[in-house]
Amino acid sequence: MTEPVSDAHAHADASYPIGPVNRVKRLHQRAAYDHATVHAILDAAALAHVAYVVDGQPYCTPTLFWREGTRLYWHGSSASRMLRQQAEGVPVCLTVTHLDSFVLARCGFNHSVDYRSVMAFGRARRVDDADEKQQALVMMVDRLFPHRSAGLRPSTALELKATAVVTMEIEQASAKVRDKGLADEEADHALPIYAERIPVHTVLGTPEPCPRLQAGVRRPLELGPYRSGRRLDEALSEAHAMAYRQK
Amino acid sequence: MTEPVSDAHAHADASYPIGPVNRVKRLHQRAAYDHATVHAILDAAALAHVAYVVDGQPYCTPTLFWREGTRLYWHGSSASRMLRQQAEGVPVCLTVTHLDSFVLARCGFNHSVDYRSVMAFGRARRVDDADEKQQALVMMVDRLFPHRSAGLRPSTALELKATAVVTMEIEQASAKVRDKGLADEEADHALPIYAERIPVHTVLGTPEPCPRLQAGVRRPLELGPYRSGRRLDEALSEAHAMAYRQK
Repeated sequence: MTEPVSDAHAHADASYPIGPVNRVKRLHQRAAYDHATVHAILDAAALAHVAYVVDGQPYCTPTLFWREGTRLYWHGSSASRMLRQQAEGVPVCLTVTHLDSFVLARCGFNHSVDYRSVMAFGRARRVDDADEKQQALVMMVDRLFPHRSAGLRPSTALELKATAVVTMEIEQASAKVRDKGLADEEADHALPIYAERIPVHTVLGTPEPCPRLQAGVRRPLELGPYRSGRRLDEALSEAHAMAYRQK
Repeated sequence: MTEPVSDAHAHADASYPIGPVNRVKRLHQRAAYDHATVHAILDAAALAHVAYVVDGQPYCTPTLFWREGTRLYWHGSSASRMLRQQAEGVPVCLTVTHLDSFVLARCGFNHSVDYRSVMAFGRARRVDDADEKQQALVMMVDRLFPHRSAGLRPSTALELKATAVVTMEIEQASAKVRDKGLADEEADHALPIYAERIPVHTVLGTPEPCPRLQAGVRRPLELGPYRSGRRLDEALSEAHAMAYRQK
């Protein structure tokens, strides 16, 4: 059984190795490979896109995922094409992107977006050990909603069988961040052209309780990070830190 | 030169062909292949993830993209690994995902998310024709901000040379949508467990005008769809419709 790995054990200055696959070639001043930067971008997200290859055909599949130490997890139906293909150590690339703004410059070339992204490379492997799988499914929920699993109706054998969990040790990773907003050519500032940055945020709406709640059942305190109007990336980062601190 | 294709010319009931690559195997009741559903999900987004293969290694790269008829475009640096690899008709999969909610059920198995996603398959090809490339770069801006290109400082030859545009005719595509919120087992409703749906929206923040605007330069009316607090997917859908209606 794999124990959840606390970030407290990680070296503060650890980095992912840089190789031909993950080296950022374009605009490398935007690149970072250190664990702190890479993990912060990953932990601020719940949704990733996973690229994998079947018979030479690339697929890009959206999935929920989470990080534990230098390992990523995602899950899905045992019958899914993605998870069946990813059972046996095939190479994958899992990417997370936060869109932070649109940059409306004074020429087309300098139009841009601010963003934070991570590409993580490794080999996917299905989690077959029953204890490791059960623990992963607990953290899949608790990573989003700390402590929640303990209060849920336990999974049935059929539900466990219908669910596949895939894990990937991050072998290489790169982060790329643009956060400089407008960056017009100096001479272009003299032109009578409107320019602006439009921030973009992903936020939580008003929670909608189930209309069929039993009498006296209240919203648990641990859902506190998920309050209306809050930025999703902040709520997810906070929940991740809570979930892995408690272990 | 490629003329922009108005959606008015499309058949209202057209669909993408269903084959082994794009057929949705899991939860096929969530699947759709018709142009209207697929295009609406694509046009509500600016960011996509593109999967492609280099020497057996899959890559998943985030990129801005846009749709014109049944064709997708994206762009980047002429020096980028992605665009160099995609010059010659290689198979790619471009995926768009909108995360719409978290679903907190009464058991782990029924935890879920509402979402809208499209996976589009085809072969990428670099746009080498000068007129087609210029037109594509105009639409790259105008698709987001209708009419904006005409008022910008024109691109220099160097800027054009530094930019590569890639296009892909959509050969196969599938949309997958979950929008049902909570879906607990009937018996689970009797349990004293809290359950809710938390909506998620990506919204625009308050535009930040360049502090170095020339005197008298005002925000153009065509940026109207991009007002503070508005949902990004709605603004992008409206802008796309405006941009291709004007042609």
